Amino acid sequence: MPQRIPVVEKILSANDRLALENLFRLDAARVFAINMMASPGAGKTSLIEETVRGLEGRLRIGMINGDIATSFDADRAQAAGATAIQINTGGDCHLDAVMVQSALSQLDLGTLDLVVIENVGNLVCPADFKLGTHKSVLVASIPEGDDKPYKYPGMYRGVNAVVINKIDLLPYAPFRMDFFKKGIEVLNPGVTQFELSCRTGEGLSGWLAWMEGQVKEFKKNPGK
Amino acid sequence: MPQRIPVVEKILSANDRLALENLFRLDAARVFAINMMASPGAGKTSLIEETVRGLEGRLRIGMINGDIATSFDADRAQAAGATAIQINTGGDCHLDAVMVQSALSQLDLGTLDLVVIENVGNLVCPADFKLGTHKSVLVASIPEGDDKPYKYPGMYRGVNAVVINKIDLLPYAPFRMDFFKKGIEVLNPGVTQFELSCRTGEGLSGWLAWMEGQVKEFKKNPGK
Repeated sequence: MPQRIPVVEKILSANDRLALENLFRLDAARVFAINMMASPGAGKTSLIEETVRGLEGRLRIGMINGDIATSFDADRAQAAGATAIQINTGGDCHLDAVMVQSALSQLDLGTLDLVVIENVGNLVCPADFKLGTHKSVLVASIPEGDDKPYKYPGMYRGVNAVVINKIDLLPYAPFRMDFFKKGIEVLNPGVTQFELSCRTGEGLSGWLAWMEGQVKEFKKNPGK
Repeated sequence: MPQRIPVVEKILSANDRLALENLFRLDAARVFAINMMASPGAGKTSLIEETVRGLEGRLRIGMINGDIATSFDADRAQAAGATAIQINTGGDCHLDAVMVQSALSQLDLGTLDLVVIENVGNLVCPADFKLGTHKSVLVASIPEGDDKPYKYPGMYRGVNAVVINKIDLLPYAPFRMDFFKKGIEVLNPGVTQFELSCRTGEGLSGWLAWMEGQVKEFKKNPGK
């Protein structure tokens, strides 16, 4: 009988260990980090741009942008005023703790309050790889449709907040908000939710206040 | 020095072998098959619904729907008039040839002209797993943004046709069609393209004619 080689298990626990190292490093530097996940085109980069602009002068923000290819997103974050590091994963469909460790080394953590990590656009794989952030956020969007929590439960289950972006498209795209929210409620009861539009600015103030509050709360007692 | 174990290579070649078996089986039954891929919410299921309705009485269509969870898509395809088999991948982020082999066994191929396989919503992983279909189609959509070919090159490179869905949202979402098409042209020169809206019906006739033509061409000489 051939020996079974537990490859996946080994990789995952190595990733978890490294994720914990990233978290300790962030705590020591008193830098709060979030992992921002979404399907392609939900508006992660737009939300990050608005966050960097909206919190300018109040929080010092660094960015880590994960993509299969290009540095478009880091370019955009940089243009909005953040220090941005681009990770090109080659073909990989998610970021992992090793990639983030390497990117953190390229940021001057002593000059930052918040690091926003933009994961690869994917509603499946990123859920399985911890990065070592304090919180994780899922960005959904109206034109994606209202059935996504039901079809991608792993992603909706594990996050600390759900942002529903592109609400300016509600008049033009079929979307049952009640059905969508019912799906979220089953998977992640009571999770913090924001309805907003990066394009029109509607609802952004609530998100910005939450983000700033999260960082302030963390700063009082890092690593608690 | 530890021995390197080429796990990935083995898995891939087993998948390729099975994909070829699926293709032979479809050829023998004179059934044309397409692999439909897209990011979550681009409109694969809507396009399939319109295809089933639009070709009713002209092609006998079977469906295989892949999702992490739920049978929403198979239910929709069935309601539109197709025989539909739902594959729930559990956590897997793509379909593979084994799953399709099993689903093909549940379809009565002798009664079908076309099998449409709806892959898991994901712009990364499905590109790496052949299913044994004759053609593959990528469904993009306007609100996803115009940078997707650049950021997900693996997916755009390998397909036989690109459908640009939700063109009814062009007035409401920022999208540079020239920039988008330039990205496609670099990765996949001359690839067949359709601009349409499943919601308004605009542009659907070109897609339906192409689909029907593909099946007719195949039927003249299956397995050529």
